[in-house]
Amino acid sequence: MTYKLVLLRHGQSEWNALNLSTGWVDVDLTDKGRDEAVNGGRLLAEAGILPDLVHTSLLRRAITTANIALDTADRHWIPVRRDWRLNERHYGALQGKNKSETLKKFGEEQFQLWRRSYDVPPPPIELDSEFSQADDPRYADIEVPATECLKDVVARMLPYWDSAIVPDLKTGKTVLVTAHGNSLRALVKHLDNVSEAAIAKLNIPTGQPLVYELDESLKPVVAGGTYLDPEAAAAAAEAVANQGKQ
Amino acid sequence: MTYKLVLLRHGQSEWNALNLSTGWVDVDLTDKGRDEAVNGGRLLAEAGILPDLVHTSLLRRAITTANIALDTADRHWIPVRRDWRLNERHYGALQGKNKSETLKKFGEEQFQLWRRSYDVPPPPIELDSEFSQADDPRYADIEVPATECLKDVVARMLPYWDSAIVPDLKTGKTVLVTAHGNSLRALVKHLDNVSEAAIAKLNIPTGQPLVYELDESLKPVVAGGTYLDPEAAAAAAEAVANQGKQ
Repeated sequence: MTYKLVLLRHGQSEWNALNLSTGWVDVDLTDKGRDEAVNGGRLLAEAGILPDLVHTSLLRRAITTANIALDTADRHWIPVRRDWRLNERHYGALQGKNKSETLKKFGEEQFQLWRRSYDVPPPPIELDSEFSQADDPRYADIEVPATECLKDVVARMLPYWDSAIVPDLKTGKTVLVTAHGNSLRALVKHLDNVSEAAIAKLNIPTGQPLVYELDESLKPVVAGGTYLDPEAAAAAAEAVANQGKQ
Repeated sequence: MTYKLVLLRHGQSEWNALNLSTGWVDVDLTDKGRDEAVNGGRLLAEAGILPDLVHTSLLRRAITTANIALDTADRHWIPVRRDWRLNERHYGALQGKNKSETLKKFGEEQFQLWRRSYDVPPPPIELDSEFSQADDPRYADIEVPATECLKDVVARMLPYWDSAIVPDLKTGKTVLVTAHGNSLRALVKHLDNVSEAAIAKLNIPTGQPLVYELDESLKPVVAGGTYLDPEAAAAAAEAVANQGKQ
């Protein structure tokens, strides 16, 4: 008995296209991002990997990616669960800032520390910033973070994995998780037992379904999972790695 | 203490545009239907009537209408529940048939009997018809009907109303139900205690949010509810009434 999990990072967002740090700011997909979602759904349908239910974050770019990919795969009708614990990492005071300008202003070392270190969060966002989510009604029941490092994301994501996603997997259903670069890196770190050093270099491409077969103890049968379109996934991961560089 | 319920019929579908009877066939929205969904979401946002959770059928035209309307109203992140009991009436052997040709072939009286009588279903669909849902995986756990009259829809819709929608209303949340002409007529019949004769003449317009405030015993405070755009709703209901006529 194995379990089937599919991870899908949202397609290009408006702020990806503008090279702005996004975090919890709820921007839309671009047309390119919508096309990526269609392609992701097509890859799932062609592989015959049909999700029985889907988990998403509370952010539009992941929700719309799931809606489009599932519609394309004729699985728009499956049950949906959403949770803030699948949200992107909160980028603190960097939210809404241009990545190239942040790099120039603070230098390569500091930029990469905020971007890729495991436990150094960016400075906290001001509560009255237009890019703060402190008053957003969708987070009325939680304490909205002011910034997060990847370690923080792991800590808030894992309880949802354990309490919501694992029980769905254990019913034998194929589970799709549509989320973000860092919430998915946090999950992959857990699944593949990736070290804090190695996770810094792991990039998850947008719109590329990553399929994990998990054994009874929820360990990957194939370490790192399997991309349905390995060549496109490698190229897209490379593009993610180069973000911020101009 | 009152409860707030919003009903929304999906926008124009591809088969509405072609004047074909649709029922459980899972056709997409037209661009006009997508525009209607945007307009429905805009009306909700402008009225400050913000759904806290949404119930949809298992059919693409209702699911996509809900996705678009909620995205427009910035409520894309709310919990979603889906159930076949909110599906359109199954139109039996008429599914996939042109409404005008059905009218011509069987005559006005028979056509209106199938269309508007409370308890006369169309002939059952053949199991091997391309328009049957007998083998559709989304209905694997139920016995798919071969045809339905409105009385059948009331009978299968009400258990979902009682067991799933009412409990959500009773938490005090604003509940959106995005569904179909006949599943919503079935619900309105129940809410407003409409007679079998009178429900025949009641048409629900597409893309027009219909808001019910319900008292503690779940009776409408205003009989028939309130359309957010009454003039547009009346015009759209008139258009529905004239379907099939050329």
